[in-house]
Amino acid sequence: MHITGKLLIAGKAIQTLKTYKAVNPVTNQELKTEFSCADEKIIDQACKAAFNDFDHFRSLSFLKRAQFLDMIADHIESLGDVLTRQTSLETGLPEQRIKGETLRTINQLRLFANLVRQGDWKDIRLDPALPDRKPLPRPDLRQRRIPIGPVAVFGASNFPLAFSVAGGDTVSAFAAGCPVIVKAHPSHPGTSELIAHAIIKAIKDCQFPHGIFSLIGGIGNEIGVELVKNQYISAVGFTGSKKGGIALMKIASERQVPIPVFAEMGSINPVYIFEHALKNKVGDIAKSFIQSLCMSAGQLCTNPGLILVKSGDVCDQFLKCVKGEISEVLTSTMLNPFIHKAFEAKVHHLAKTPHVILLGSGKGSTQPNQCQAIVYKTDAKTFLNNPSLSEEVFGASALIVVYDNLDELHQITNNLDGQLTVTFHMDQQDIALVQSLLPVVERKAGRILVNGWPTGVEVCSAMVHGGPFPATSDSRMTSVGTAAIERFLRPVCYQNFPSSLLPTELQNDWVAKVNHRVNGLLVK
Amino acid sequence: MHITGKLLIAGKAIQTLKTYKAVNPVTNQELKTEFSCADEKIIDQACKAAFNDFDHFRSLSFLKRAQFLDMIADHIESLGDVLTRQTSLETGLPEQRIKGETLRTINQLRLFANLVRQGDWKDIRLDPALPDRKPLPRPDLRQRRIPIGPVAVFGASNFPLAFSVAGGDTVSAFAAGCPVIVKAHPSHPGTSELIAHAIIKAIKDCQFPHGIFSLIGGIGNEIGVELVKNQYISAVGFTGSKKGGIALMKIASERQVPIPVFAEMGSINPVYIFEHALKNKVGDIAKSFIQSLCMSAGQLCTNPGLILVKSGDVCDQFLKCVKGEISEVLTSTMLNPFIHKAFEAKVHHLAKTPHVILLGSGKGSTQPNQCQAIVYKTDAKTFLNNPSLSEEVFGASALIVVYDNLDELHQITNNLDGQLTVTFHMDQQDIALVQSLLPVVERKAGRILVNGWPTGVEVCSAMVHGGPFPATSDSRMTSVGTAAIERFLRPVCYQNFPSSLLPTELQNDWVAKVNHRVNGLLVK
Repeated sequence: MHITGKLLIAGKAIQTLKTYKAVNPVTNQELKTEFSCADEKIIDQACKAAFNDFDHFRSLSFLKRAQFLDMIADHIESLGDVLTRQTSLETGLPEQRIKGETLRTINQLRLFANLVRQGDWKDIRLDPALPDRKPLPRPDLRQRRIPIGPVAVFGASNFPLAFSVAGGDTVSAFAAGCPVIVKAHPSHPGTSELIAHAIIKAIKDCQFPHGIFSLIGGIGNEIGVELVKNQYISAVGFTGSKKGGIALMKIASERQVPIPVFAEMGSINPVYIFEHALKNKVGDIAKSFIQSLCMSAGQLCTNPGLILVKSGDVCDQFLKCVKGEISEVLTSTMLNPFIHKAFEAKVHHLAKTPHVILLGSGKGSTQPNQCQAIVYKTDAKTFLNNPSLSEEVFGASALIVVYDNLDELHQITNNLDGQLTVTFHMDQQDIALVQSLLPVVERKAGRILVNGWPTGVEVCSAMVHGGPFPATSDSRMTSVGTAAIERFLRPVCYQNFPSSLLPTELQNDWVAKVNHRVNGLLVK
Repeated sequence: MHITGKLLIAGKAIQTLKTYKAVNPVTNQELKTEFSCADEKIIDQACKAAFNDFDHFRSLSFLKRAQFLDMIADHIESLGDVLTRQTSLETGLPEQRIKGETLRTINQLRLFANLVRQGDWKDIRLDPALPDRKPLPRPDLRQRRIPIGPVAVFGASNFPLAFSVAGGDTVSAFAAGCPVIVKAHPSHPGTSELIAHAIIKAIKDCQFPHGIFSLIGGIGNEIGVELVKNQYISAVGFTGSKKGGIALMKIASERQVPIPVFAEMGSINPVYIFEHALKNKVGDIAKSFIQSLCMSAGQLCTNPGLILVKSGDVCDQFLKCVKGEISEVLTSTMLNPFIHKAFEAKVHHLAKTPHVILLGSGKGSTQPNQCQAIVYKTDAKTFLNNPSLSEEVFGASALIVVYDNLDELHQITNNLDGQLTVTFHMDQQDIALVQSLLPVVERKAGRILVNGWPTGVEVCSAMVHGGPFPATSDSRMTSVGTAAIERFLRPVCYQNFPSSLLPTELQNDWVAKVNHRVNGLLVK
């Protein structure tokens, strides 16, 4: 598959005068392909095409839609090493990670294909007519969920595959029946184009309307702003920074017709390490902490950025182990020079903060864009008095807060911002303490873990990759796992419809084949 | 039950210096009770109490919560004629309507009590551990939904019972496990207090924490603004005007922590009356139209405000019948002088609009706040060229648009704003035409009816009382029916939890008793 650098608008390749190039973060050299930049007109063209083909797309049988998702998976699979090489060039991520993420992306597509086939997501509800009810008869009422409309998806820098062109937002929007316009992340436009070709090929194979997918790209914020402002867009999926997410939320809320923005904006993912757990496995915990922290150069939304440990001998031992473990860590290439620069600036800010002490760091390097893993420590008072210490550092940097008593721990817990995850390392003897924290933690986080690390988000039915603001824009939703489809569906009620006019899936024959509700009760 | 005029903050009656009085719209005279006005400090007190008791409330068994809802229903039932008299004095609504609405409110509480007992709303999902999976094992993952936090509910003017203090927003928030702070509508503060006492009595009976409910009130917008701004509030339920709803959405989106606003802002509820249907039952349709239009002086969110009919002989006959029917309609008292004044102003605007012609009106009256039913007609071009004709007139006023061809009808349909409902009056022979409109209409409305009228919203499982903006703030939700509970829940995932730490309802024994998902598949 050849990378052309063109925008892909409703199946048509479009070249523009304004172009940009991706940078290989390993060398800081520009890659050779010139990628076209979208402008307002092209964005409107893509959005309008999506809108025009929306009714057609959503009218197609959901079995065909499932087949479409499977085909995208197949075509991505066929890209093989071409994809791995391109992604590696553009992101500096290790090959193994890219292959793992490719597999995750493919499995995610197939999981959603199965979800679509299964049909529960339609949430079909029947309240049959009660013609003899007094004082008034009840009409026949049937509900199903329909797709919300064209969705704008922002490719994430840190998941060039699993959260970009055919990633979690796209697959859940397609599964719901929504057309998708993806804004490629400018760090990996070639990867984006390869995946876009896989989608377009699947559209052709399925004879689906071309308007259901477009890939736009460019540099600067304007393109994203125009996309979210566009009248044909009904919802937004975004994974990125708090600043970026909040900016999109504001634009979406100020539209003539406001639309929902599902922004996953990361968090510091507090990890509570309790005394008894630590005592028994101090070395293991320190080791697995540094592994989790340094995974993908720490460029993960679920990176463990805040560790809470009680002062004392075991804590001292833990700090010593962490120092030892991190000293062995080699640098890794970060995704792009901007991310690297921001990381360095934030680390510098930590270094300058009074009472924040360097605990240890990994090995250094003179190569470009290298993330040198680093761990700071501080006391509870310093942490509580300095809100900037609660801000995410995107990269392999963590802050260990050593508290002296449970009052401090409860105060820190109560003060936490919304988080994607909170983790407890605990033993049976720590259970009462965890129980006392759990109600507060439930209000703060989307996922709570015991004796594990938050990195490595399982794509499944029970996953919640969400959490209260500012972790996400809407704590009621998840962006990973099958429940992500809920973001792009809305219910419609059909009252007193003759059978011949009812949508197929609400007709008695079809309803009988799927899980549904009658008078509120589940019929399997 | 004695009406005191006091604010009811977390179980305590509070009197303030600033007071207001309700007006009897039948006489335009002030009623005698002086009602206290809340201020910022009292609002914060109520919200803080709600927040402080939130964890306790949500930790109580859902069976107790169901019992609590049933008890509220019982206590409202016991109010009997005291309630009917008070509501009648404050709203001018006929006794029969008030009794019907009381029954609806009671049934709604009991319906949600059953919903809570049934447990499906927890959406329990299990993805069991796969310790042997390659390349990485899967941890045990369990999901449940928890309440979002304290909810601010704005009492609606037009449903003093079913959408006020113990109405749809309150009952669905309580059902989810959220504390509720209600801002009483200043038109019916005595009714609000009576119902608040019923809730407080149920709280006492159940020995629930008092902070889970407060009733505040006052005049002016400030109180509502302070309530939505308050840091302890997690979501807002609102039924009222587009202007009011949009103002609250803006405030909520500009908070340091933005919160969702579920605003139901009404609509014009287009009714398509097709040729063949009309031909066979022109008299019946005209009669039932005027009945629906004039129900509760037209002060219903689902009032049929726009009628679409094709020009021709049958249309002329229909117009004649409508004129005849409406001429018999007596005036009805509107809910308050402001609503009456706004109605008169909007009707005046219609009267002044070129090419908008008075078709007929009901009988007049010299009594205060009387709604004189009125129907205007116009042509498609005038309607399409004048956006103000698409605005809701709150009261018994409708506009019949007579179109000449299907192009005009499709254009009107494509141009429609979001609606709560769209209705088709059709015969078997009209079905192809309806089918051609349905995809567009599905994108515009939350509920679609055939051969009925949109007024009279069934409270059941399949109901959708929602719709795209500006009908509501979030088309993915309903404010009537059991699915209204979804607004106030958010998912939390528990990863690798020891059984002893899991919330009861996620433990294997309990899970086995309710509908749940294992690996995404439903287990009944």
